[in-house]
This record gives sequence, C-alpha cells and structure tokens, in this order.
Amino acid sequence: MTVNRPTIDHVRGAHARIRKYIHQTPVMSSELINRELDASLFFKCENFQKAGAFKFRGASNALLNLSSDELARGVGTHSSGNHAGALAKAAALLNVPAFIVMPDNSRAVKKKAVANYGASITYCEPTLQAREDTMERVQHETGCTFIHPYDRFDIIAGQGTAALELLSEVPDLDIVMAPVGGGGLLSGTAIYTKGFSQSIQVWAGEPTGACDAWESMKTGQLVPSVNPQTMADGLLTSLSDMTFQAISDHVDKILLCDEDNIVKAMQLIWERMKIIIEPSSAVPLGALMQNPAGYKSKKIGIILSGGNVDLAELPFTP
Amino acid sequence: MTVNRPTIDHVRGAHARIRKYIHQTPVMSSELINRELDASLFFKCENFQKAGAFKFRGASNALLNLSSDELARGVGTHSSGNHAGALAKAAALLNVPAFIVMPDNSRAVKKKAVANYGASITYCEPTLQAREDTMERVQHETGCTFIHPYDRFDIIAGQGTAALELLSEVPDLDIVMAPVGGGGLLSGTAIYTKGFSQSIQVWAGEPTGACDAWESMKTGQLVPSVNPQTMADGLLTSLSDMTFQAISDHVDKILLCDEDNIVKAMQLIWERMKIIIEPSSAVPLGALMQNPAGYKSKKIGIILSGGNVDLAELPFTP
Repeated sequence: MTVNRPTIDHVRGAHARIRKYIHQTPVMSSELINRELDASLFFKCENFQKAGAFKFRGASNALLNLSSDELARGVGTHSSGNHAGALAKAAALLNVPAFIVMPDNSRAVKKKAVANYGASITYCEPTLQAREDTMERVQHETGCTFIHPYDRFDIIAGQGTAALELLSEVPDLDIVMAPVGGGGLLSGTAIYTKGFSQSIQVWAGEPTGACDAWESMKTGQLVPSVNPQTMADGLLTSLSDMTFQAISDHVDKILLCDEDNIVKAMQLIWERMKIIIEPSSAVPLGALMQNPAGYKSKKIGIILSGGNVDLAELPFTP
Repeated sequence: MTVNRPTIDHVRGAHARIRKYIHQTPVMSSELINRELDASLFFKCENFQKAGAFKFRGASNALLNLSSDELARGVGTHSSGNHAGALAKAAALLNVPAFIVMPDNSRAVKKKAVANYGASITYCEPTLQAREDTMERVQHETGCTFIHPYDRFDIIAGQGTAALELLSEVPDLDIVMAPVGGGGLLSGTAIYTKGFSQSIQVWAGEPTGACDAWESMKTGQLVPSVNPQTMADGLLTSLSDMTFQAISDHVDKILLCDEDNIVKAMQLIWERMKIIIEPSSAVPLGALMQNPAGYKSKKIGIILSGGNVDLAELPFTP
C-alpha cells in the first residue's frame, strides 16, 4: 500500500505557490556565537516573516489550496498564537473571512495581532478539548474550513519552505535544526532536508518541560503532551499522527533544553545579533548549549521560528 | 582663506579604507510603520554594525589613518559607551592597545563590551572635565593617541559612510535623517548626502531634554549641553566647533522628540521590525511622530545608530 506522505516535491510546490506572498527571510550569523559554540551557525530568521513567524508559510499554502467556494465561507483555526496570527494575516491578504478560536491565556501580543488583522476571535478555556469543541461550534455556525495548525499535509509542506530557502543559501550544512512543538515545522524541515541530501543530519530542540516528542521518539509511540510547563509558549502542543510519522522517518536526534538555557540562548541572540526572537526560537541554540557534544566545527542551520514577544514580560534579569 | 572641511570625497575615501573591516549593514522597511506615518521609511541598520553601532565606522577610519609608530603606542578615548566599544573593537582587530576612559555611570552593557574587547578601562566622574583630565593623565602615562568621539575630520568622514551605503541602495530618497548628540554622525551624514544631491533634505532628531543642537541652530551660536536629561544616552554630549560648522552648513531641520515618543518609536521598531535598537536610534522616528508635518508620502532614509541596550533595564510597560 502506498501511504500518502509529504515529500520534497510537495515542499517545492508549496514554495512556488506562496513565494510572492511571503518574505524571503535573511540568514544571519554571529562570529561571537560561533566562537562560544565552536561551530558555524546559520540562523534562518523567520522572526522577520510576515505575522512574525514561520507559520505564515503553512497558512498561506493551505489557503491557496482551497477552492473559491471554500474561501468565500472563510477559514478557521484554534491556536495559542502564531498560527492564529498567520492564518488571520494570510486570510486578510486574500480577502477571506477568518474565525480564530484562542485559549484565553494566550499572550496579549498575539491576541492583539490577530485582532489587528481583522479576524473574528472566540476565546475558550486553555485545554485541547475546549479548543476543539469551540472550533466545532464556530465551524457549524459559519461553514468555515478548519485549518489545523500542523496536522495537515499542506501546512507541513508550507513550513518546509523555510528549510528550502536556508539550504538554497547555505547548501553545505552538516546539520539542520528546528524547535518541535506540534511538529509541523520540524516535519517540513526534515522532509525537505533529507530529500535535499540524506547526508545532512536533522536535529530538533525541545523544552525539557514539554518533551513529548523526545519521549515519543524514545518509546516509538506517540506520547501526548500532558501539563507541559515551559516559557516556550509555541511548543506546548502534542505531535499528531502525521507529524510523528514524518519525525520518526526523518529526524536523527531530539535534544532537550531546560528553561535556564532557553533564557541564556535567547539573551545571547538578542544581545549579539540585535534581533528579537521569542523563547520557542531559542530552544535549538539552548539545546546545543546544554548538550555540547557531536557538533564541534560543524555547519549548523537553525530555524528561528518567530519573534512575537510581549516586551513588558521579558525573562531577563540584571 | 580656504577652510579645511570634510567633503563627500573624504567620506568616499573613508569607505574605501574601512570597507573590508565593517559590516555593510542592511536597509530594512516595515509596511505597518509606513502606513502609520504615511511615508516610505528606509532604516539603515547600524545596530547590526560591529560593536553594535555606527561608531565602528569612524573609529576604524581614524585608526587606519595613524602611523605605525602611533599605532604601537596605542589609542585612547573618553566615551560613555558606543565610541569606547567601537574604538576598543577596532583596536583589537588591528592588534593595537586601547585605553578607554569611561564615566562610572556608563551602562553596564557598554562597560562589559569594552572590557570584552580587551581594552584597559579607567573610570572617572561623569563630567566632561573629569573625562578630559583623566584622559590627559592616561595619555601622559601611555603615549597613546587621543581619538575624540566626534571632533575629528576622520571620525566624521567615517560616520558618513553609513549614508553612502544607504544612498547607494536607495538613491531616490527625499529626506535623510540621523539622531544628533555630539554631531559626528549627523555631520558625516549631511556632508555625504548634500554632496550626493543638493535636492535631498537632511533632517535630525534630537531629544527635547538634550536639545543643544536645536538651540545652536536657532541662535546661530554653539550652545553647550547643560545638564541634559534623556534616556537616549548616546545623545547627551554637546556639538563641537567642527560638527556645529558642518551641521550649520548642511542640515535643513532639527526636530525635537520627547521621552514618551522615544519609547513609542523604540517599541514600534522592536515589535514590528523585530530588531533591537537603543533609545538614541529611536529619536528620528519619534521626532517624525511628534512633528507630523512636511513629510507625508516622502521617501525617508533613517540611520538607526545602534543596538546596545541593557536587556534588564527596558522602558516598556504593559
């Protein structure tokens, strides 16, 4: 039986489809960070992506795959933040109604962004059950098409386009890294990277306090995320069957990162590269700092997933 | 009598001299900020410059102009921050001793940066008199060459190279803006811009609490800065005869910016462009927000002077 799975060609197709809507984000480096880690790091700056995160890639790819009938009824999703903002922004660009279900504990900066893009927001309790129930009700009322944040073929293919651009700019990487939450970015990254070259390793960084992907890899079974605790608010969700499959197939290693190393890595990037990244983006670098083996003198591409932070709620101390 | 003043050719010469030592920094834009101001803004990102500020341009140009005898004895300066870091970094790259006199109330991040570059630091009281006296003593002891932060021909020419790069990337600007403190950046910017095209306006932004350049322009006399009060700690110093002359000759307008508009402009750039700038860098945009006349629909280049901030001491509130 042939299983229908996203491949490098789907990522290439997504890139052709979304290219004129997205920012081709820069790849940045820091001599000082390279010296500190004794490796050459290439940061793909999705914090500069539209709506402030890589999520805009998948969202715009999903929308551009819908029929005009579907688009007329609008799109909806439940998300704690960046996927919501990305879908709202992509919908606004295509003049399509967007219906967003957000947990009421979402960060203020993300609520504000979604509202600014003109989406209709429905708040709910911060549980997966409440999110799904509320979403079902909104779908029933509006007829909108539900766009899952990561358990979709076209979302995964869209997220993989960040790795496509990274590898077209720096083709001779030894390792490509992304953070892992629901696994959409990591799946797309891994599918593209291994399709591009089997000899490039794909690693992930995951918060120790939300290490369901690490446990799933270790046990070979999808272990859901139960009561995750991390400041990396983009990485609280569980893998889906689809992302677990892609990660099992293509990811070589998941490294854990404690909260203090998330702050250290985030501060290093803010201070040395003068760019704003959110805690989730700092997890791969923090994971390398926490596990300083196996990458010395290597060329490592890291996808900085986003830059949406509340400036009044930063973790830095004197 | 021919007065010896820096011209566009000195800026071109400086650029040829320092080109391989500096970062050619990117020019960035934000659709949202453009919409908010009803103008097209092009930000020259000197926050990404080596040592985190445009000052590295002037410092490296000054050093590359010294004789090998002078270089062997080292260089020195007094500075509250970015010039100190820049001179220390340029000296380190050229393997030259650096002796830095810093007011003891300089920001921790700037003290740390200077120390990291391997310079010898001497702290003093935060007055111009104490800085000059201490510097004189250090010069006497070491034989180092004093590199004034802005009252030097080669420093001004070096700072002008940011405008050179900006105008080579976006030649059809209507207005070029820079912040003004001691006036080195503004002088170099104005000299290059007017040499490039007399039809481009040169504007400056200055904190209302440190408005000596604005007063000097108004009265036609160099008015020293007395007890300046602003969070834009790079803009506390007074003009010198040399920078006052260049500014009188070439600058069309100085706009004032209150402290609350510095914070608003800084927050807008952090949140929307996802880059870290220091308060001094936010002053031109804040000044435009405070004085919303005369620039609608114009193309405005703004030099973001630097990105050295203490992350534990930020002005943002919920």
